[in-house]
Amino acid sequence: MNKIRAVVFDAFGTLFDVYSVTARAEQLFPGRGEALALLWRDRQIDYTRIRTMAAPDGAHYKPFWAITVDALRYAAERLGLALDEATEAQLLKEYACLSAFPENLGALKRLRKAGLPLGILSNGNAEMLDISVKSAGMHGLFDHVLSVDAVRQYKTAPAAYALGPLAFGLDAQEMLFVSSNGWDACGAIWFGYTTFWINRAGHPAERLDVAPSGTGHDMNDLLEFVRAHGVAV
Amino acid sequence: MNKIRAVVFDAFGTLFDVYSVTARAEQLFPGRGEALALLWRDRQIDYTRIRTMAAPDGAHYKPFWAITVDALRYAAERLGLALDEATEAQLLKEYACLSAFPENLGALKRLRKAGLPLGILSNGNAEMLDISVKSAGMHGLFDHVLSVDAVRQYKTAPAAYALGPLAFGLDAQEMLFVSSNGWDACGAIWFGYTTFWINRAGHPAERLDVAPSGTGHDMNDLLEFVRAHGVAV
Repeated sequence: MNKIRAVVFDAFGTLFDVYSVTARAEQLFPGRGEALALLWRDRQIDYTRIRTMAAPDGAHYKPFWAITVDALRYAAERLGLALDEATEAQLLKEYACLSAFPENLGALKRLRKAGLPLGILSNGNAEMLDISVKSAGMHGLFDHVLSVDAVRQYKTAPAAYALGPLAFGLDAQEMLFVSSNGWDACGAIWFGYTTFWINRAGHPAERLDVAPSGTGHDMNDLLEFVRAHGVAV
Repeated sequence: MNKIRAVVFDAFGTLFDVYSVTARAEQLFPGRGEALALLWRDRQIDYTRIRTMAAPDGAHYKPFWAITVDALRYAAERLGLALDEATEAQLLKEYACLSAFPENLGALKRLRKAGLPLGILSNGNAEMLDISVKSAGMHGLFDHVLSVDAVRQYKTAPAAYALGPLAFGLDAQEMLFVSSNGWDACGAIWFGYTTFWINRAGHPAERLDVAPSGTGHDMNDLLEFVRAHGVAV
């Protein structure tokens, strides 16, 4: 195994807890909040994929925030939920006040103290990421906050994953890519990263014919993995 | 509007009714069949997208049948359903005996009688399509049965949609692309086809900033659309 020289994280669901979005949806639409949040998230990811596949040159690219709005409107309409301007604004506002998973801040600080450069590599556009980093109390912890917006292609496009090695000046295999999305971890493996899957939800492994270098339930398991790879953390 | 010189159909869900798969799932796993069929279908499409996006050169391509098996195994494991070899075989076998939606055969025959060349353009690989065409009683109705397998990229990749004009020797805009999947219709519009969305499920339009040339509930509505475009059908 290579020594790890930098760690790059996926953002939403990995660093930032998006549960509050579901909670707010449930508050606004009692009994339907979970269905709305699920379909919203599904369509959000679907739209990134459909647009990227249809135009490798980025011709159908649309920033993640705009796609997030599109997906919410679709999901509400399909579920027959009345989404007036105020309700929509309340749901979208949740993205501006996401919190970190409880163990995240401590773990990130230990990785940083161990001398590891840290980064974010996200589908989110810069404005979304800036707001979330601040709202989760992670300001100043990252050397690079990278958005696929720079290449107008969403993950799992190689151009998206290429942003990490480019920014850090390292080979992908010297970098640890961390995601709580199984498919995102697989995309990173294909690209050449050393990869850790934080399987918070306890889901089965995606059947994509590759396996991450490490798997765990939270960021503390990640610290253990990093330790086993020669970093005193 | 251009005159329509050929009609190309998506296969599963558009020509072939895949409801029997859900029915069999419900029979095998009472109370959980619909959840299994839904997650199975979701992962099946997800895997086509994740693999295509990760390698525009087709390096991570896997034929649709193999992806269908992968997706079924994932879905069963995630739902905690025991999928032994016999149960798996029973579910997969449903794909070998799909039926046509009730109005489809008549509509296809009328289109053909009107002198329109017909085709299929599907994510499915050739073996799957052959079996389904026969089992649905559609043998001999199509001039071209096209699989994205030829280009190792799934829809919505332009290379996939390009198979139609190439086979028929026509411009995309002279061809009518028909799908019951909203996202598939959008991919075809982006590519340049004249497009008809059979919205069987009565879903809202996908929020992808394009609209099909026509929309209807079934193949009879398609016939009406074709008539309005100068074909005596």
